[in-house]
Amino acid sequence: MPGHFTLLQTDRATAARRGRLATRHGVVETPIFMPVGTQGTVKAVTPAHLREIGAQIILGNTYHLNLRPGSELIRELGGLHRFMGWDGPILTDSGGFQVFSLAKLRRVRNEGITFQSHLDGTTLFLGPREVMTIQHNLGSDVAMVLDECPPWPCKHDHCAKAVERSARWARECLAAASETGAVAAGQLVFAIVQGSTFDDLRRAAAEELAALEFAGFAVGGVSVGEPEPEMFRQVAATTPHLPADRPRYAMGLGSPPQLLRMIALGVDMFDCVMPTRVARNGLVFTPDGPLNLRNEQFRADPRPVVEGLDNYTCRHFSRAYLRHLSLANEMLAGTLLTIHNLHFYLDLMAQARAHLEAGDFAAWHRAWIERYEAGLAARRAAARPPETS
Amino acid sequence: MPGHFTLLQTDRATAARRGRLATRHGVVETPIFMPVGTQGTVKAVTPAHLREIGAQIILGNTYHLNLRPGSELIRELGGLHRFMGWDGPILTDSGGFQVFSLAKLRRVRNEGITFQSHLDGTTLFLGPREVMTIQHNLGSDVAMVLDECPPWPCKHDHCAKAVERSARWARECLAAASETGAVAAGQLVFAIVQGSTFDDLRRAAAEELAALEFAGFAVGGVSVGEPEPEMFRQVAATTPHLPADRPRYAMGLGSPPQLLRMIALGVDMFDCVMPTRVARNGLVFTPDGPLNLRNEQFRADPRPVVEGLDNYTCRHFSRAYLRHLSLANEMLAGTLLTIHNLHFYLDLMAQARAHLEAGDFAAWHRAWIERYEAGLAARRAAARPPETS
Repeated sequence: MPGHFTLLQTDRATAARRGRLATRHGVVETPIFMPVGTQGTVKAVTPAHLREIGAQIILGNTYHLNLRPGSELIRELGGLHRFMGWDGPILTDSGGFQVFSLAKLRRVRNEGITFQSHLDGTTLFLGPREVMTIQHNLGSDVAMVLDECPPWPCKHDHCAKAVERSARWARECLAAASETGAVAAGQLVFAIVQGSTFDDLRRAAAEELAALEFAGFAVGGVSVGEPEPEMFRQVAATTPHLPADRPRYAMGLGSPPQLLRMIALGVDMFDCVMPTRVARNGLVFTPDGPLNLRNEQFRADPRPVVEGLDNYTCRHFSRAYLRHLSLANEMLAGTLLTIHNLHFYLDLMAQARAHLEAGDFAAWHRAWIERYEAGLAARRAAARPPETS
Repeated sequence: MPGHFTLLQTDRATAARRGRLATRHGVVETPIFMPVGTQGTVKAVTPAHLREIGAQIILGNTYHLNLRPGSELIRELGGLHRFMGWDGPILTDSGGFQVFSLAKLRRVRNEGITFQSHLDGTTLFLGPREVMTIQHNLGSDVAMVLDECPPWPCKHDHCAKAVERSARWARECLAAASETGAVAAGQLVFAIVQGSTFDDLRRAAAEELAALEFAGFAVGGVSVGEPEPEMFRQVAATTPHLPADRPRYAMGLGSPPQLLRMIALGVDMFDCVMPTRVARNGLVFTPDGPLNLRNEQFRADPRPVVEGLDNYTCRHFSRAYLRHLSLANEMLAGTLLTIHNLHFYLDLMAQARAHLEAGDFAAWHRAWIERYEAGLAARRAAARPPETS
């Protein structure tokens, strides 16, 4: 393997890691959160906003971009970076998850998946070669393999078949990425470990994939409806079987405390639509838990969302103003709250990196989570109607 | 009158003027276009975007802001500038136009207007004192008087009554603005000349209002459905009767050629929702007329909206990308196209000012309009189905 990932430091008290991922569009300091740019834009913000808040790497979505505007068109226009005006690293997922969750599924075979577009019903096919060709067309820096994400809950034998098929597709994706010239051109290919809640399947999948020449490994099939302790258990059952010298990515996660707990389990990379999606509904993150700015209590609140947090939204606007924008359904509400929420996540990752470097990550992350969850609990208690005697 | 307006230059070949309006939040170079910020935000863009594209003064809306979040709340929070994070000049309209167009009208009397909120049906009253108190609460730099905008077409006697009532309200608004301390605090009060398509009424209204201590004069009741030549005729019937040493503002106008023609008739200030509203539907302005970026012809167009125009959108994004965003209903489409369209309007005003200074405004504005309208005509011809023989 090329030395694209440098493990700078491993925490003594937890499995947390401080690392550095080199891509052809720049270096990513880990642990890192990756804002999600499904359709060639992180919703409601400009690339300049993303730069301002310290985004290092963003996501693109193979399924969506292939349906609209099409990966061939994006290639013609110079690739996804140029198309969307983002010159930093981009990771694209394979589209498998969206095929299983959004499209009308027709048939899953070893060759790939036949499905109907959620946009216009067209029948389409995605196999290992197709997803790697699309990601090569997009020119992403990190490409994900096609996988089959079993639902939760699922039976052991059903899951075993999904894991087996995912491993076959992973090998075929790696081969396809070599054949298209993507690997030679510097695209990193990450495998995805499935296995649902079965430790034996997770371990076997991790070991099988770890033996191959993947540039990184994702923990897939988490946060698909299972209880939170089960989710952590699945990550904990996976990371010890992954090579220490390659980055680990937990897909589609999660709340701020979940991210910190995952870092403590040895995860390096995260993506999640939550900070962007909830922003568009008036929800903002703070060190004392999330706030719903649409609540009456913020009507005349002159304070910023988070005092002292250095982003455009917190520097210039009051909670009262942001509440007004959100209630009036002004687009600017989505923009300003997305800037804040993404910055909050990115800043949290920067803090985690700093505390890993300082050697006090374990105590810091426990205290951070405690404060966050205490704030959340207090607000929940206040919202509950008083008990009748 | 204080010397808040300086007439720097008057064009020799047209009635166009180059001026400078001093407000308590800064100087405005005229002719100028004012982006519309109805609900305390210019839709889809941040104040930083507005600064970047050279916005000098923006609009706020008395009717909307008084309904939500309320002008008292905005006053409590330090005024509209601080509330919305814009420290440049703000002009607020009186809300009269919105009461007539949006609200369910209950009764118009000499005392004011009783109406129902379009948001929740609450019965409310706006009179001269109310609109000036609201605008004082908002702390805008330029306040507009309450007026009655007659519909088009309307009868002479109906219109005469609206003009008479508007003149009465204008006097009462001026008195109210003195009593509240707004005038002493530096708020400029502009009168509005009504009169529909009746030259005698326009002239009488202009002369009556010009005799009072107003800081500026608006031409109201234009672009309310009348044919375009009629609109120009109304402006031409009004401006000669207004004092040369005070700014003139044509309300709610218009297309780029309309703005240039109005400048040639002696108008200094404009506002219009068009550039922001059409941006959210994929329409962009160019020197060769407007383009609908959603059209198939832009599918793979790698060019910026306008080659060489120095705004964020034109510097970084292709028509193909903007088309994709607009078709995918991404919020960023609204943001990027709004940035472009507003910059296009502001840049057009900057060009007009430069050509006034250079002394070649008349020839330049004719050539500009000719190119724009030729492009528009060519596209219309191309879109028309071929004639059958």
